[in-house]
Amino acid sequence: MSSRLRIIGGVAGGMSAAAKARRFNPKLDIKVFTDDQYISYSACGLPYYIGDVVKSREHLIARTVENFAEQGTPVITRTRAIEIKTDSKQIILEDLANHKYFEEEYDQLIIATGARAVIPPLEGIDLPGIFTLRNIHDGDAIKTYLKENQPAQAVIVGAGYIGLEMIENLQVYGCQVTVVEKEPHILPIMDHDIAQVVSNYLNSMGVEIVTGKAVTAFNGKHTVEEVIVGNNSLPADIVILSIGVIPNSQIAARAGIELGHSYAIRVNEKMETSQPDIYAAGDCAVVRHIISGQEMYIPLGTTANKQGRVAGENAAGGHAVFKGVLGTGITKIMDMEVSRTGLSEQECQDLGIQYISHTIKSRTRTPYYPGSGRIHVKLIADKKDHRLLGGQIAGFSGSGKRIDTIAAALTTNSTVDDLKNMDLSYCPPFSPLWDPVLTAINKF
Amino acid sequence: MSSRLRIIGGVAGGMSAAAKARRFNPKLDIKVFTDDQYISYSACGLPYYIGDVVKSREHLIARTVENFAEQGTPVITRTRAIEIKTDSKQIILEDLANHKYFEEEYDQLIIATGARAVIPPLEGIDLPGIFTLRNIHDGDAIKTYLKENQPAQAVIVGAGYIGLEMIENLQVYGCQVTVVEKEPHILPIMDHDIAQVVSNYLNSMGVEIVTGKAVTAFNGKHTVEEVIVGNNSLPADIVILSIGVIPNSQIAARAGIELGHSYAIRVNEKMETSQPDIYAAGDCAVVRHIISGQEMYIPLGTTANKQGRVAGENAAGGHAVFKGVLGTGITKIMDMEVSRTGLSEQECQDLGIQYISHTIKSRTRTPYYPGSGRIHVKLIADKKDHRLLGGQIAGFSGSGKRIDTIAAALTTNSTVDDLKNMDLSYCPPFSPLWDPVLTAINKF
Repeated sequence: MSSRLRIIGGVAGGMSAAAKARRFNPKLDIKVFTDDQYISYSACGLPYYIGDVVKSREHLIARTVENFAEQGTPVITRTRAIEIKTDSKQIILEDLANHKYFEEEYDQLIIATGARAVIPPLEGIDLPGIFTLRNIHDGDAIKTYLKENQPAQAVIVGAGYIGLEMIENLQVYGCQVTVVEKEPHILPIMDHDIAQVVSNYLNSMGVEIVTGKAVTAFNGKHTVEEVIVGNNSLPADIVILSIGVIPNSQIAARAGIELGHSYAIRVNEKMETSQPDIYAAGDCAVVRHIISGQEMYIPLGTTANKQGRVAGENAAGGHAVFKGVLGTGITKIMDMEVSRTGLSEQECQDLGIQYISHTIKSRTRTPYYPGSGRIHVKLIADKKDHRLLGGQIAGFSGSGKRIDTIAAALTTNSTVDDLKNMDLSYCPPFSPLWDPVLTAINKF
Repeated sequence: MSSRLRIIGGVAGGMSAAAKARRFNPKLDIKVFTDDQYISYSACGLPYYIGDVVKSREHLIARTVENFAEQGTPVITRTRAIEIKTDSKQIILEDLANHKYFEEEYDQLIIATGARAVIPPLEGIDLPGIFTLRNIHDGDAIKTYLKENQPAQAVIVGAGYIGLEMIENLQVYGCQVTVVEKEPHILPIMDHDIAQVVSNYLNSMGVEIVTGKAVTAFNGKHTVEEVIVGNNSLPADIVILSIGVIPNSQIAARAGIELGHSYAIRVNEKMETSQPDIYAAGDCAVVRHIISGQEMYIPLGTTANKQGRVAGENAAGGHAVFKGVLGTGITKIMDMEVSRTGLSEQECQDLGIQYISHTIKSRTRTPYYPGSGRIHVKLIADKKDHRLLGGQIAGFSGSGKRIDTIAAALTTNSTVDDLKNMDLSYCPPFSPLWDPVLTAINKF
């Protein structure tokens, strides 16, 4: 009998695991279970789907149930995993159509249950008009609400990537947008100076920003009407709550599987959990940070895909490893591009690393070439050995993706001294003669 | 008495040397001599100046004679260096205004005489309407000719960076453009498959391309009227000749200074020539290729600047080194971006390196995000140890600068295996979930 691989979860981690396992072993008995009806969709595209930049939800779906079925991989949707019995190697599942329970045996199991939005237990939290954004259902609900209610005032609670990406996608509906962030600055994953560049830009574009204050309640008669922040009341016809996510690790915890950082499932570099034959991947699992060596929780689509592939290959009998992440991230906020990789100053301080940091201001293109815009590049290096530790970028068109140059240098454990005369590309439509990344490196 | 640093040459190599030497030693006695009236200009901006993308020639000038004078560095323009007397440490110079000769003593000398365009001794080469493009005078002459003569047919001879950049800048004047390249494909510095992507695009945009055939003559009564290529005649009201450059190394050779590849001045990593106290930098000097370790001649503005800084610092008493180049280059050809770094397949073959190569086709952004365009990424790695050797990219907006990620990986001597799970940035407006560079890496 062929080995039975069972996968719980139908988005990035689960479906990339299924696809990789299938490629690795075309004859493997693979089944995927997911509680949703949609699978393999791009959650990162949801803000643009809401803003009608992406017209159809079908565009967000990379591969369908039918695509997987054709490869001999059944995906059983609308079916929730309730329990994992590690002794008997069984999963208890619930068919959500008829609420019937059934058992499924596995030889190898991959848990890819993702994460869910944090919903704080605040007064008024259940008022209509307050949304989180994690899946296609959320996207549809927000889009419908915007079209039907034409809200004038929007409040985004939480100024991370998703929250800030929502600004322009609410503005297209005519909303006046206010952003509330409880940390001292927006984009708490970045350092203050780079976040300030974004903050100044957003203010100049008419976006109101409230930082350092937490939301304490939502008020409204039938639907949300105001957000209470400290002593202030912000008018709100719609609220997008994007204050973070929690890993869906309960099912793993109940099965005695060890959890790690932020209650995410602990995995090693083979994506093995503490239980034999059980792997985990994606937003339900921890990652190792390559620079600090620490276990962290940084749920991102790219990582979910990479972890999924490694879990899929290993569960199918392979020997793949995932060395970890740099915490690389990028986003476009209206016309400003923001990106980061490696450790921030704040993270260095938390880890007790002595560092040097330089931030430079340059141009995306030769100043005389049309479309040349401002770019700020920040680099952080170890004070002792000058090892590059991280970088952050904020600027206009052409800025953001320059972070990959820094990510590549971090991957190979470079010192800033190694990189001083790096032969980066130059031509007036693309860069000043000294690329801004190189200018920043030469500050050390 | 303060040490006397004399510099011959007023563009990238010479002026970056002068600026760096001044920063290194604010009291140093520095003088720069140049035969031109313009200094410190961006030669790479000339095609865009011709096409009126850059309106004024002043925009191309980074720093003026007055800027340098303010820092105590006189720049003596319209003055040509005729001879270097190494025994007496003197330069013989000609004041081009009055053709008077004079002597200048030096303690340290930097030769930054640049390069000149290759002008083949063909029939009709002196006909009006045939231009090369190296300096602001050439740019002015071409711009004036285009405006006054409104040529209908333009022929570009030589399909390197500058030649191909001229296409769009001739089209704005209404010219129908034909490109002639004697090598089997355009962009001979790139491999055939990537060059073919560009070639197909140019054909689709109505640009005629003739490859594998050399120009044998130019005909015309008063001005150029046709270009003879093999048995064919191409109608031509204007010709841009961009078939390469020759280093201005005669003055060095006559002084007994050793020449290297392509008759460029041989320098070590301190930018020292074979003569004590004489340095060279920029388009007149050789470079060392970091990947092959070989001496090469790759004249580029970025390299000239880096070499200039090193020469300037060392001539002022410092100890800087320039480790060499990757041959990184980028250009925009109409709406297509093309870039390269490291070794090409052809270069690997010439060096006898056994290699593996993969070329992938992907998208610049998530396919569902507006503006997502085609991108081709080629990577070359050593067959034995999988060391990354080079990369080439061709594609639409957002493609070209991705070469810097590959350049960073080459700088740190990575293998493709080191890079397989590299944490590159992803967000729908910037990249598919797997960045095209990562997709290419994962083909190995």
